[in-house]
Amino acid sequence: MRYEEQTIEGRNAVLEAFRSGKTIDKLFLLDGCGDGPIRSILREAKKHDTIVNFVSRERLDQLSETGKHQGAIAYAAAYAYAQVEELLAAAEKKGEAPFLFLLDNIEDPHNLGAILRTANAVGAHGVVIPKRRAAGLTAAVARASAGAVNYTPVAKVTNLSALMESLKEKGFWFVCADMDGTAMYEVDLRGPLGLVIGSEGEGVSRLVKEHCDLTAAIPMKGEIGSLNASVAAGVLAYEALRQRQA
Amino acid sequence: MRYEEQTIEGRNAVLEAFRSGKTIDKLFLLDGCGDGPIRSILREAKKHDTIVNFVSRERLDQLSETGKHQGAIAYAAAYAYAQVEELLAAAEKKGEAPFLFLLDNIEDPHNLGAILRTANAVGAHGVVIPKRRAAGLTAAVARASAGAVNYTPVAKVTNLSALMESLKEKGFWFVCADMDGTAMYEVDLRGPLGLVIGSEGEGVSRLVKEHCDLTAAIPMKGEIGSLNASVAAGVLAYEALRQRQA
Repeated sequence: MRYEEQTIEGRNAVLEAFRSGKTIDKLFLLDGCGDGPIRSILREAKKHDTIVNFVSRERLDQLSETGKHQGAIAYAAAYAYAQVEELLAAAEKKGEAPFLFLLDNIEDPHNLGAILRTANAVGAHGVVIPKRRAAGLTAAVARASAGAVNYTPVAKVTNLSALMESLKEKGFWFVCADMDGTAMYEVDLRGPLGLVIGSEGEGVSRLVKEHCDLTAAIPMKGEIGSLNASVAAGVLAYEALRQRQA
Repeated sequence: MRYEEQTIEGRNAVLEAFRSGKTIDKLFLLDGCGDGPIRSILREAKKHDTIVNFVSRERLDQLSETGKHQGAIAYAAAYAYAQVEELLAAAEKKGEAPFLFLLDNIEDPHNLGAILRTANAVGAHGVVIPKRRAAGLTAAVARASAGAVNYTPVAKVTNLSALMESLKEKGFWFVCADMDGTAMYEVDLRGPLGLVIGSEGEGVSRLVKEHCDLTAAIPMKGEIGSLNASVAAGVLAYEALRQRQA
């Protein structure tokens, strides 16, 4: 579902945004400020499991478009997030083994958009991103996704590792790409699958990696040690598709 | 070989840049100006087969960093270009069937950088770009390539179609990606191969497409009709690598 992407400034406006059901991607509050309205915003943020960033007045002034932030700025998502259950239900409805992308630390909107597009192209049932340290569903991501954001649902979770553990109980296998892994052609990518994609700079975080069952290596024949994050996601996802179609 | 990327302004400076052997990616001259120095620059540009853009004074003022362009601005490449013969020699030296990327209309530096990186990763012997309507080897491309520009040679040609015809005489096959083609798994991607990659907006141009022997389709299982250009290049190149290694 399409929303207008919005920067919401001012205590009442931010509070209203929460109460009206808007999805807040990011919340910035003045550090050290604990008066009534700010406490109300904090309660709403907690209720909706929103990550709160406490920042200095200088930072808020910098982020502010109106100059009247009153110590509170929120970024609302341009698109609605789905629940992980909806992603699984979509697979079940199609009678297919679930196929999800889990994105760890993808903060670049162009990479997120390109990966959403790839997820749609390989027929994945959805994409999961963490609440912290991730690009949200902004207008820039939607543009880079070439519209895939309208078709492939995206769920946002607090803790990727916890989700992985609960999905393992449903028979999921989690595979991450890493140069030290088994050649991807020899890794079984059929069945209920979660492809774990890390950022370029840091790759998949240690904790998430520990929860992966398998590590698949993309062959590298040259001098360079890694691919662009969205290219790597594409290559691994298409190898999965090849195996799943065979 | 690494050079400093440079914007060169002023008639003498531009003329000297040509005479010193610098590779000029782009040349902008004041439209309608035909005096001696400009004619000398034009002769050098013709000798080096450089594309010349005749533009208005307003455009030159806009491009100028110094405000003293005297009707001539040139962009020098940050990296040296190779000759197509060197690409072929590299394959022969390794005892491998030549594997080249031909990029048609890739104007975005991030896509060009990501594709250079992929070309290196799949062990391609080089990348060919056209002189017209292409991103050059700028510092931004080098960054996006994660250093691949230092290892994988890039040749720049005036006419892609003419090159394709002459390489066909050496046994090359040219494959472009297109949704209407044969499923890529069924296209033979072994032997002397040129992968032709088009831009996202327009794809491969009609003339270049007519010179392709084969059209390979990347499977698309979702609602979206195409992948990001560098992701598509990656997926097709890795299918070629899989076949070539098998």
